Amino acid sequence: MAAVRRMVVVGGDAAGMTAASQARRLQGPDELEIVAFERGDFSSYSACGIPYWLGGDVTERDDLIARTPEQHRERGIDLRMRTEVTELDLDRSRVRARELPPGGARGREYWTDFDDLVLATGARPMRPPLPGIDAEGVHGVQSLEDGQVLLETLTPLQGTASDDGGRPRKAVVVGAGYIGVEMAEALVRRDFEVTVIDQAPQPMTTLDPDMGELVRDAMCDMGMEVVTGAAVTAVETDERETSGPGGRTLAVVTKEASYPADVVVLGLGVVPETSLAREAGLPLGESGGVLTDLAMRVRGRENIWAGGDCVEVLDLVSGRTRHIALGTHANKHGQVVGANIGGGYATFPGVVGTAVSKVCDLEIARTGVLEAQARDVGLQFVTVTAEATSRAGYFPGSRPMRVKMLAERGTGRLLGTQIVGREGAGKRVDIAAVALSAGMTVEQIMYLDLGYAPPFSPVWDPVLVAARKAAAAVKAESGG
Amino acid sequence: MAAVRRMVVVGGDAAGMTAASQARRLQGPDELEIVAFERGDFSSYSACGIPYWLGGDVTERDDLIARTPEQHRERGIDLRMRTEVTELDLDRSRVRARELPPGGARGREYWTDFDDLVLATGARPMRPPLPGIDAEGVHGVQSLEDGQVLLETLTPLQGTASDDGGRPRKAVVVGAGYIGVEMAEALVRRDFEVTVIDQAPQPMTTLDPDMGELVRDAMCDMGMEVVTGAAVTAVETDERETSGPGGRTLAVVTKEASYPADVVVLGLGVVPETSLAREAGLPLGESGGVLTDLAMRVRGRENIWAGGDCVEVLDLVSGRTRHIALGTHANKHGQVVGANIGGGYATFPGVVGTAVSKVCDLEIARTGVLEAQARDVGLQFVTVTAEATSRAGYFPGSRPMRVKMLAERGTGRLLGTQIVGREGAGKRVDIAAVALSAGMTVEQIMYLDLGYAPPFSPVWDPVLVAARKAAAAVKAESGG
Repeated sequence: MAAVRRMVVVGGDAAGMTAASQARRLQGPDELEIVAFERGDFSSYSACGIPYWLGGDVTERDDLIARTPEQHRERGIDLRMRTEVTELDLDRSRVRARELPPGGARGREYWTDFDDLVLATGARPMRPPLPGIDAEGVHGVQSLEDGQVLLETLTPLQGTASDDGGRPRKAVVVGAGYIGVEMAEALVRRDFEVTVIDQAPQPMTTLDPDMGELVRDAMCDMGMEVVTGAAVTAVETDERETSGPGGRTLAVVTKEASYPADVVVLGLGVVPETSLAREAGLPLGESGGVLTDLAMRVRGRENIWAGGDCVEVLDLVSGRTRHIALGTHANKHGQVVGANIGGGYATFPGVVGTAVSKVCDLEIARTGVLEAQARDVGLQFVTVTAEATSRAGYFPGSRPMRVKMLAERGTGRLLGTQIVGREGAGKRVDIAAVALSAGMTVEQIMYLDLGYAPPFSPVWDPVLVAARKAAAAVKAESGG
Repeated sequence: MAAVRRMVVVGGDAAGMTAASQARRLQGPDELEIVAFERGDFSSYSACGIPYWLGGDVTERDDLIARTPEQHRERGIDLRMRTEVTELDLDRSRVRARELPPGGARGREYWTDFDDLVLATGARPMRPPLPGIDAEGVHGVQSLEDGQVLLETLTPLQGTASDDGGRPRKAVVVGAGYIGVEMAEALVRRDFEVTVIDQAPQPMTTLDPDMGELVRDAMCDMGMEVVTGAAVTAVETDERETSGPGGRTLAVVTKEASYPADVVVLGLGVVPETSLAREAGLPLGESGGVLTDLAMRVRGRENIWAGGDCVEVLDLVSGRTRHIALGTHANKHGQVVGANIGGGYATFPGVVGTAVSKVCDLEIARTGVLEAQARDVGLQFVTVTAEATSRAGYFPGSRPMRVKMLAERGTGRLLGTQIVGREGAGKRVDIAAVALSAGMTVEQIMYLDLGYAPPFSPVWDPVLVAARKAAAAVKAESGG
């Protein structure tokens, strides 16, 4: 009888538990033992859903949990919660874990051997070392634990809400990227007056500046204050002025001004959590993410795999590796890792940089490269923007959107697409995302056979309108 | 000075007028004279929008008109309304036209020479030669004129609506394809009791039977009566029972039963209107549509072009030519024809058979081939269906959909996708449509980088869920 192999997973969220589940689907416990370590209290949850839980769209925290520890254990995965892996000993193929008992007591430590190791340690929120950043009332929103603490601030207990005499509550969100704008929406829904501060010259630097300005305009129209080009230097706490039982008045300070707040939310994005990998000498990319091969195996290692928010992925358009923390990638990485460990074969082909978000009814999407990114990697291009509607112009609910498209000079190959609009704008980016993956030219895109009927699209879908314009621009640029 | 060339366009709707406009964009009146003939009263209108005008979504008929005759004339196109082309004399490069004065008087006839001829004669509704089919109260819905007549029946004048003593009005729709189900929705919105009759065993034969059954179930849940496998043999008019001032009682008769109706709508689809082309000896395909080359030039002819609902197009998946009457194709054909006549260069690459429709809140979409179509052209395949949701399962407004996918045996190449669901289902077919155009395998599709955020999609988009299942089925079928 062959020895049972052991797969050890570090991190019990999307990438790690998908890898575990997929491997288990392919091999039973008599072939493969699976041990997974998670230092927190939750497994397999949707961090992307936290802003919607805080905003009230999602009423129950546990709705964000895709699979509980018990469900994983029932499927033959030895998932050890509140157990942190503190060291990778790759020479001896083992990891050291420490239990984290509630209450902060020092827990048991032990070594566990592995045949295959999966690093799925995720990402951690950026938290600049500013004076006051750890003050009470300053919140991150990366984990369910973070969310729970913030939620209690946002939704005062019954009977206490009116103690403030009706004074509107103020929130400052630091960071105007995806997390920042999603949290701004959540806070507006909780009746806060919201100020969003970012050091960049525009909100959503994942868009080109001209498209980011559309987001600023829409946010201002929603009653938010948007402060850009402003670096936060400190968070101050004034204990003299209280705003209710246990309340404090905070102020977010920039070089130019001070923004009072009842609550401060940090939405500065995340960096890969790869201290274990770094200490073990594993290869990291420019953003600090673990570098893997196409099978999601750590580069240069036979039996060490990585996936999810702790890795860098190949961007098929720019040819560079990038760190993109998104649950949809984490799930796919896990699928690939699990298939390979389980005796199958799969590869992750890379990404094209697609992202979609919304702030209230404004939908924001992008795929491929921005102008600056294209220049950075040596691509020359033409740029067009087009205005079009989500449905036939005469159909009720038809909403305008702006589509920006970058096409390679000469070849006309699509390089990137950005869309800002209302209902029906966001997911249209998928058309461009698939076309990018396929290496299509804008002229090929303009003749794509997309779903058309008046309630769904104009005769020329907005993405095709932009492609048509881009095709003409490519021709004009090349003198023909 | 070079002689001015003349482009003659037969048919003043989407394909013809797009061709005229595009050619005019490229060449001015000193290079190219453009004469267009339209036998009706309207130019460049959206026939696809008629059901929504009749149902009340669109309030004004003229909202469906993209460009009026005057607007075309202002752009230097000599558009002659109510003028029918009665003969193509290709040997002498001229067409004979007859004016159609209002009131039915015989109008002037004359010949017009052309250098380039564009056939954009459209399609005509199928109208089987059944007893009673031309009775008062039996309506087609192909043209704005048809729609205007029907609309007056659907919306009684103020004060007469209650003359029927509150008896619910009954409508029978003959045909349960796109036009039939869209008209069923329109009639429900006008408070009719609706029966839809089709001789096929299921509604929506543009879907596989199992997916068509989902449409039947949903239509029944909406209170419609759906009668399938029933060929209509006659429409009877009973003049004894009147249902109000000027009203009649009709009955749609099948072999098995008789369905009383206050109004009967024919929604049987369309056939290419190609009698002029046929008489002139131009090549027609199996469905009677004009056959063209990739530049949309009539096969074997130098200076005769065709586009829109009167042509057959290459289906890239089946390798056959097909007749598909859709405004989105007509516009693209016109774009290609106009570019080529105007001295540019463009080709129409073909279609993948994408269509999307809705009946009330049910969204119905397809692309590629159905099971029967695949077998018919020699394709072998595996089939999967997947259930998934439009947004993250925990996000408000998340709605279920069913996605069916056909992948080629062995290669795993995508062959077709069908989607039936609620909000957010229909336009997802675009993902599959682009992937089909690119010749992607289901395994490539499963790793596509699509827009993900909880309000827009689950971590695995429904199309990716189906692709993942299809990839597994392809592997299982090939023994690996």
